[in-house]
Amino acid sequence: MSIDNKRTAPIGVFDSGVGGLTVTREIMRQLPDENMVYFGDTARVPYGSKSRDNIIRYSRQIIRFLKTRDVKAIVIACNTASALALDVVKKETDIPVMGVIVPGARAAVQATSNKKVGVIGTEATIRSKMYSRTIREMDPDVEVIGKPCPLFVPLVEEGFAKHRISEEVIDYYLASMKESGIDTMILGCTHYPLLRSKIMKYLGEEIRLVNPAYETAMELKVLLKELGIQNVGKDIDPDKQEESCANGSYEFYVSDAADKFKHFANSILPYDIRTTQQINIEEY
Amino acid sequence: MSIDNKRTAPIGVFDSGVGGLTVTREIMRQLPDENMVYFGDTARVPYGSKSRDNIIRYSRQIIRFLKTRDVKAIVIACNTASALALDVVKKETDIPVMGVIVPGARAAVQATSNKKVGVIGTEATIRSKMYSRTIREMDPDVEVIGKPCPLFVPLVEEGFAKHRISEEVIDYYLASMKESGIDTMILGCTHYPLLRSKIMKYLGEEIRLVNPAYETAMELKVLLKELGIQNVGKDIDPDKQEESCANGSYEFYVSDAADKFKHFANSILPYDIRTTQQINIEEY
Repeated sequence: MSIDNKRTAPIGVFDSGVGGLTVTREIMRQLPDENMVYFGDTARVPYGSKSRDNIIRYSRQIIRFLKTRDVKAIVIACNTASALALDVVKKETDIPVMGVIVPGARAAVQATSNKKVGVIGTEATIRSKMYSRTIREMDPDVEVIGKPCPLFVPLVEEGFAKHRISEEVIDYYLASMKESGIDTMILGCTHYPLLRSKIMKYLGEEIRLVNPAYETAMELKVLLKELGIQNVGKDIDPDKQEESCANGSYEFYVSDAADKFKHFANSILPYDIRTTQQINIEEY
Repeated sequence: MSIDNKRTAPIGVFDSGVGGLTVTREIMRQLPDENMVYFGDTARVPYGSKSRDNIIRYSRQIIRFLKTRDVKAIVIACNTASALALDVVKKETDIPVMGVIVPGARAAVQATSNKKVGVIGTEATIRSKMYSRTIREMDPDVEVIGKPCPLFVPLVEEGFAKHRISEEVIDYYLASMKESGIDTMILGCTHYPLLRSKIMKYLGEEIRLVNPAYETAMELKVLLKELGIQNVGKDIDPDKQEESCANGSYEFYVSDAADKFKHFANSILPYDIRTTQQINIEEY
């Protein structure tokens, strides 16, 4: 592929299901001219309770699929897959592959004043200690407190994000975190930003929440620029630039239940998905 | 296989994960001398939010696997797979295959006095209307009210069955059911019996709960006897017969996270699982 073709080639983004759409949303906002191909592994969601071997196998299959769509770079928009599979698949893949852990860790290290950082995520993400290791490589003085919150994903997936029940579950999981003395907490699962306002209300304003989705889009922007493969887009009237969002062309694929996914996506994206295509990911 | 070999051959039981262990527990109680091979599809759980095509594909793979273990009959101990796949796989399989819907429906028809029956289950089970159709084939005068309760499965899987949060979720899903005038309600998902006492407390004693696991074990007993392939077992002192439970030999297989499964299984079975083997179900 020539550099010019590479510029207009899409970015591949994948997640275990709908959670990665919070990353997609940030990419649409910060890189409005980039084209995207999203894959949500709705047939095998959730990843958070599964073994490393399976998460690596799933990630390899999805990367093989995304490469058939001629993507120029891949974002693993899933904390569990970033924690368990990124190291392995990055080495095997001839285009840039980035995850959400390094950007999230970097933002937390920059945000913390008292060097006490909390991380919430799936069982697999927390068990992997990947956030903890990455943060301490950046600053060995930072203490990291991890807490798995496995019920948050089904709460979001089943539409309870704004319901009182979520408040009870937040209290159940985060009571000890609230008392731990952290000043920064990473939302270490792409579903959790959808519970952000309730978590923020519960923890109070003294604890700063880091959403790796935002930082990931920022790092992707830097990476594409460094490699000279960012999509320049159409000429935009500078006065109207702030309004530009989601100008790219977007394709959405899932491994199951395409309609349910589309409905969810349309409720959170600044862009109306018209079609979502179901594929058999086990064939890749 | 000769009839004598068939008698001692195991019964294959499968579910999307741990839920089917409530059926296994009933088979251990009511058919204590039968050997069993259990498969829990922990890599692809939950089934309740997935499409019919995938549920049929998963069921076919699992039946192929169970047949390699020389099972004499198969129990689909999962309401979603019973609702969506039983009709198809039954025709393709040369040994008896039974599900949990017909036994559950029959028990509800026998239990109801006012001919108003409630059914709770996964989204896929309720959407299939399989309970409704089966009940009305048995008695066209029975009115069936279905309600999907998708958060019940993760609540059970994440260990909230006895927690106050479950009471809130029960209230959220079942408030309309409580006011609907039903006198009988089917626990149409194998996870739900683990929430039984809380559901019973919430609905009150006027509404009778049907657990298809119990009825499925009873129908399996009748089926094996009719076919002359029940395992006769060792001679048991009739005075001690009531104590006999789980005398068979049991094998447990999963598609992921064998240790988590074993831990859960040991908390609900009248039998201590020593080993659980992980297999790659996609190879079958």
